[in-house]
Amino acid sequence: MPVIDGDRLVRDLEMLRTFGQCGNGVVRQSLSEVDMESRRWLVERMTNAGLDARIDGIGTVFGRSRNPGKALLVGSHTDTQPTGGWLDGTLGVMYGLETVRAFAESRETRDLAVDVASWIDEEGTFFGLLGSKMFCGLVGEGDLDGASSADGTTLHAALRDAGLEGRPLERCVPDRYRAYMEAHIEQGPWLEEEKRRIGVVTGIVGIRDVSVRFEGQQNHAGTTPMARRRDAGAALVTFATRVHEVFAAHAGPRSVWTIGNIRLEPGAASIIPGRAWLNLQYRDADEARMDRFEDHVRDLVRESNARGLVAVSMDATKDRTAAALMDADLQRHLEAAAECHAPGAWMSMPSAAVHDAQNLAQVLPSAMLFVPSKGGISHAFEEDTSAEDIVLGCQVFADAVASVLLEGR
Amino acid sequence: MPVIDGDRLVRDLEMLRTFGQCGNGVVRQSLSEVDMESRRWLVERMTNAGLDARIDGIGTVFGRSRNPGKALLVGSHTDTQPTGGWLDGTLGVMYGLETVRAFAESRETRDLAVDVASWIDEEGTFFGLLGSKMFCGLVGEGDLDGASSADGTTLHAALRDAGLEGRPLERCVPDRYRAYMEAHIEQGPWLEEEKRRIGVVTGIVGIRDVSVRFEGQQNHAGTTPMARRRDAGAALVTFATRVHEVFAAHAGPRSVWTIGNIRLEPGAASIIPGRAWLNLQYRDADEARMDRFEDHVRDLVRESNARGLVAVSMDATKDRTAAALMDADLQRHLEAAAECHAPGAWMSMPSAAVHDAQNLAQVLPSAMLFVPSKGGISHAFEEDTSAEDIVLGCQVFADAVASVLLEGR
Repeated sequence: MPVIDGDRLVRDLEMLRTFGQCGNGVVRQSLSEVDMESRRWLVERMTNAGLDARIDGIGTVFGRSRNPGKALLVGSHTDTQPTGGWLDGTLGVMYGLETVRAFAESRETRDLAVDVASWIDEEGTFFGLLGSKMFCGLVGEGDLDGASSADGTTLHAALRDAGLEGRPLERCVPDRYRAYMEAHIEQGPWLEEEKRRIGVVTGIVGIRDVSVRFEGQQNHAGTTPMARRRDAGAALVTFATRVHEVFAAHAGPRSVWTIGNIRLEPGAASIIPGRAWLNLQYRDADEARMDRFEDHVRDLVRESNARGLVAVSMDATKDRTAAALMDADLQRHLEAAAECHAPGAWMSMPSAAVHDAQNLAQVLPSAMLFVPSKGGISHAFEEDTSAEDIVLGCQVFADAVASVLLEGR
Repeated sequence: MPVIDGDRLVRDLEMLRTFGQCGNGVVRQSLSEVDMESRRWLVERMTNAGLDARIDGIGTVFGRSRNPGKALLVGSHTDTQPTGGWLDGTLGVMYGLETVRAFAESRETRDLAVDVASWIDEEGTFFGLLGSKMFCGLVGEGDLDGASSADGTTLHAALRDAGLEGRPLERCVPDRYRAYMEAHIEQGPWLEEEKRRIGVVTGIVGIRDVSVRFEGQQNHAGTTPMARRRDAGAALVTFATRVHEVFAAHAGPRSVWTIGNIRLEPGAASIIPGRAWLNLQYRDADEARMDRFEDHVRDLVRESNARGLVAVSMDATKDRTAAALMDADLQRHLEAAAECHAPGAWMSMPSAAVHDAQNLAQVLPSAMLFVPSKGGISHAFEEDTSAEDIVLGCQVFADAVASVLLEGR
């Protein structure tokens, strides 16, 4: 069976870390200059590993195996949040690369076909899970016309600046593949909590984003009596407080909700905000409960509008990803490899984070492997995983990929 | 007595409006390129009116009369809020200019000395009421080292870019002056409400700004269980809601409070905010009540820290302006002029907005005149006052200035 080279893996992870490094963290948002540099570096690494590699028309780095037979597709993402950690999805992409290299070095596996992808914009700088959605045909190019980053750059402009405009797009040809497998850091506290080193993912929670706008009357903060104010900011903080109360009252064991961004306009000390905006995101493995959460938000919008001073409106159509189950058979292969290299030190668990595997699961049997996140911290500069866990995870992953493909023979 | 030229006045107001015009509003923040252009234009206008005019080392436009004897200082400001109205303080500066021109055209007043000032940065782009505080010696240059705009530009850098560095500063020589008088739009609803066209200001409310910071733990919005979160944004909205409750419970008839700005960091949909910040401003004519408000904010900070998850700290030392009374004798002159030109259509009233007159009142007898604001709206593009009220206000103002100076003879 394949034997991965832990030093080579960690060296490459450290190398990729230098693209956009910021202290212990990394700032490498999709299609930024440094992100494109890192993609060109990745194409070179894939090519050296024998893959036919290129960056496609949306920014995804795709390395295709030249070996015959059904292939297994390994992927994740190398883009980061505005203030991201060094591993996150990067780990899964480098696991794929190291798996390909280890396979080539072992007689048993050298002719197995493994493709590796780094899906563009999983973090949603322009459009969440963009690369995997495009590959799986879950978005048409028309859906992307409105896509733009927080600073107003449109996706189309970013693709043009990155020199990707007009390049061909990689599309999923299901017949080519036996399955899709993805590794990622857990991003949560559970593995550490349970003293386990490997997580085999049973399913991925769904995610919904709601954007709520408040329209009041901008006015002078000194001369406008309290009784005559239509303060969009005051309406927003009351609304947000109610959201936390109501969601807490109806939450399931693993429900989470976050108001990650708030904006008051014009945002000056001595002006009553005339407009305000917040983003509410919530996640749950239970789609029915997420429907109920959405109803609660509608009720709170009605409740706020009933006061009649500030006009509140919500948009719940934005970024939604449905919960997805992982393939049971693939989980069996991951469990066997985990039990072999870390007896008793693995567990089955749901993923509370959204992943590209959610999209791939709609067109291919899919599975995910997790390694522990120190302190459960991620999407932050402090994010980290021990070298031992990084190397163990890759060996388990490579073994599972091999046994899936060999079983298919 | 002087007869002002209403057409000339409105023409100049419309001319000044073109500097930074944006729809019906104006964007002309202190020391911006367009603000400096408008200041050079104003120097030219003052010079044509016979004043010895220049821009001083802090950005204030100062026009000194060449006439002998005690002078009356007229001032206000031509800088605007990030989204400002076309009149605001600009009205008072142009009243001063028109008063000088009208005086020169009447035998009785042609040798009276009237200085006119456009104080820099009344709106606090860098430092609230900067020009009048500097003129009155209420700030030393050392106090300005920390001053910077929302985008991080320091005041010193802005002065350098504007070419003002090293220029002499205008300083108040109290012996030169009989008094200070300032006209401004009311910025509130009371004159319109009471169907009056002139307001004679009795006193100006005090203002306090408190900045409150929240330090939690930035983390992943999907994988961090609610029970383990240290969400700075959630702490902020709870705190802000409590501020509105507690202030409402302890407010006086004319107390006002505003949370004009909120920031969550990093401000992304799928990241739990690790840091958050808000600005709370409150105003009252009663200094003792403002002290009690400050104590209430301290209690809320303690209350929030008691939960132990997010560290909350406040800074109440920032921009404070004490309440100030207007000079009774000067009010008498304004009342007489108002009664002459608008019998029964004027009223005495406090100012709920902060004005440069607050600083001048500490070194000279000071007074203010208000004209109505349509719908009580200001610090917004919709801000407006009828041409009739603009012209009437200027005639009343000029008469009062004349009678104050003539009485001194």
